[in-house]
This record gives sequence, C-alpha cells and structure tokens, in this order.
Amino acid sequence: MHPADIKPTIADESAPTTRCRIMATASTFFHEIGYQKTTVADIARALKMSPANVYRFFDSKKAINEAVLERLIGEVEAMLIAIAERPGQTPTERLVAAIHALHRHGMERYERYPRIHEMVEAAMAESWDVCSEHVAKLTAVLERIIRDGVREGEFATSDPAAAAGCIHVGIARYTHPLLVGQPLQPPIPPLETMIAFLLRSLARP
Amino acid sequence: MHPADIKPTIADESAPTTRCRIMATASTFFHEIGYQKTTVADIARALKMSPANVYRFFDSKKAINEAVLERLIGEVEAMLIAIAERPGQTPTERLVAAIHALHRHGMERYERYPRIHEMVEAAMAESWDVCSEHVAKLTAVLERIIRDGVREGEFATSDPAAAAGCIHVGIARYTHPLLVGQPLQPPIPPLETMIAFLLRSLARP
Repeated sequence: MHPADIKPTIADESAPTTRCRIMATASTFFHEIGYQKTTVADIARALKMSPANVYRFFDSKKAINEAVLERLIGEVEAMLIAIAERPGQTPTERLVAAIHALHRHGMERYERYPRIHEMVEAAMAESWDVCSEHVAKLTAVLERIIRDGVREGEFATSDPAAAAGCIHVGIARYTHPLLVGQPLQPPIPPLETMIAFLLRSLARP
Repeated sequence: MHPADIKPTIADESAPTTRCRIMATASTFFHEIGYQKTTVADIARALKMSPANVYRFFDSKKAINEAVLERLIGEVEAMLIAIAERPGQTPTERLVAAIHALHRHGMERYERYPRIHEMVEAAMAESWDVCSEHVAKLTAVLERIIRDGVREGEFATSDPAAAAGCIHVGIARYTHPLLVGQPLQPPIPPLETMIAFLLRSLARP
C-alpha cells in the first residue's frame, strides 16, 4: 500500500491531533522552503497522507497559514499578558518591558526564521482579518497597562485605547515583521530614544 | 546592422543624456515587469544598445536601481523642503503638512506603481546606504521645522534632531514603502490621531 493511500481514521479525539500534525509539518515547510514554494501535496506527503485528507482539515494552504500564524500570535499575546500582569513593576516599567519584548521577539523570530516574512506577507494579502485581530489583541494589552498607569497617576490621557494604538503603531519600525529585519542604525533612533519620546506623550502635564 | 550593434558616440555632452535614457527605460521596466525580472539585456535592447554599452554607464542592475531611487528620493526631498519653507504657516502646520505629504506621496506611488516595493526591497538588501541617506535627508527637513518651532516657542525639546528622528520613525506605518500598501483600518489609528499623539510629545510643558 502506498503511504499516501493510508487514510487515518478520523475519530473525534484524533481530529485535533491530526490538525496539529498538519500545522506542525506545514510550519516546518514554510520556515524551511518558504510559504510560496510549499504545496499542500508536500505537506500531505511528509505526513504520509493524501492531499484530500489534508483538505478535510484545512480547505486551503491559506487556511493552514492562518492556523500556523494564529498559534504564533497566541504565543506573542501570552508573552505580553505576562508582562502586563507582572507584580511589583510600575505601569511605566511594564509598558517599556512590553515594547522591548515585542522588539526582541520580532528580531529573534526574524533571525531564526527569515522566511516568516513570506508567511506574514501572504497573510497580509490573503488573510487581513487574522493580521488585524492580532494587532487589536496586542494593542488591547498595551491599553491595559496604560489604564493602570492612568489610574495610578503615572500617565495622563483621555483616551487610553487611542494612546495604546499610537504607541503600538509608533514602534512599527522596531517590531513589524516586515521591517524588523532592517538595520537599526542612525538615522533610525535607538529604540530607547523612541520609547522616551512616546512616553513623553503620555506624561502628566 | 543589428540595432544592438549601434554604439552611440559618447561625447561629454551625451553621457548624462545616455545615463538619463538608461534610467528612464530601467524605471519603466522596473515599474512594469518588476525589478527582479528585468535584466540589463532587456534595458539595452529597448534602447537599441549593447549590454556592454549600458555597463559603461552603470556597472550593475543594482547601480541602475540606486540611480532610479535617488531620483525618486530627490523628488520627495524637494517636496518636503518646499513645505518646510512655506511662508505664512506655523511650524506645527508645516510639520503636519509634511507628514501628510509623506503619507499621500507614498500611497499614490504605491497605487500607481505597486512594483516600487520590489525596487525598495532590492535597495534595502543591496544598497542600504542609499536608503539610509534618504531617511537622513527627510529627517533633516523635519528637524528644520522642529527647530523653527522651538525658536518660535511652539515646541519644546532639548534635542530637535532626535525628536525629528522619532517623528519620522513614528509614522513608518503610514509612510514606509513596505507598509504603505497595508489597509489603514482599526485597530490602526487614523493618521490624524497619530500626528496628535506625536505632537503632544513636542508640546511645551
């Protein structure tokens, strides 16, 4: 029997596992040979499945990419939430830590997986909602920290949600997956300078 | 005689003209079929020149791209300088106008020439100095406006150069050639909100 002809039984229990295996294999292909060059047939072959079986779980390569990115996004979000909830740190300290974490995470991911760009570019072209939701989730965590700061008298803003959106968009040059690989040399200010500039905007008058 | 065999006489007067013709033809190819797919042979053929003749003016496709981008960059710089020198406007008005002009120019260029991304990506990979110089030149114009604002008592900053760098980097999401094509919808704040946030950082205490 040809490996591609082996059809695993899809019980309720095994479905999530198969989904995970497809995502893990797809993620490896996307990182190693790139999103554009990977085909659903490649993923199926590596899993000894038929492409038709992969399509039972994901109706397109785009859908697999969305699932892979959602997992990555979930990791970043969890990292930010942990910083937002850190005990013993002031809101300013947590906001600065959150920005540094976004930058460092983006840089590390870029260095380890340069092809992540391709996945993100594909998502921005094909799955705008996933990207947009990601930005909204991270902005919401920044907003929580800013609200804490307003309550504790460290920050002044009449619109913490808008301020969080501006802080998030203001660090795009240091954190956006499509820009994070670009050299950070003058005339680009060091991230510390940019953070200080953005925090001035939140300062109490 | 085959067109490609016609060698134009390169007198001192004609050299700049030939350079310009090569740049104009290359620019058309880059915009229409893309930087990666264009070859020096394509450019030479369209100009009825030999590739060797093109290489007398530019030693690589990369060098042609640099020249084409430098011309585009010169246009953006001239546009910003005209805004910085506008009579009858306050520094705040000129700074806001400069930011809007950078955004509008980037959007228009993206809509008319989507392949500009490819040229910019190639430049960022192959000709970092050209990109870096461009950013420095535009930042310098923003700095001039900020210095005017400090002198006239509208802005407060102890380091106008750093503030200009932060304003410039802070609007990357709205003006960077690699991001300008992305939708500007919530959670991305409207440009006006971002400008107001950045200006607060320059406000007098």
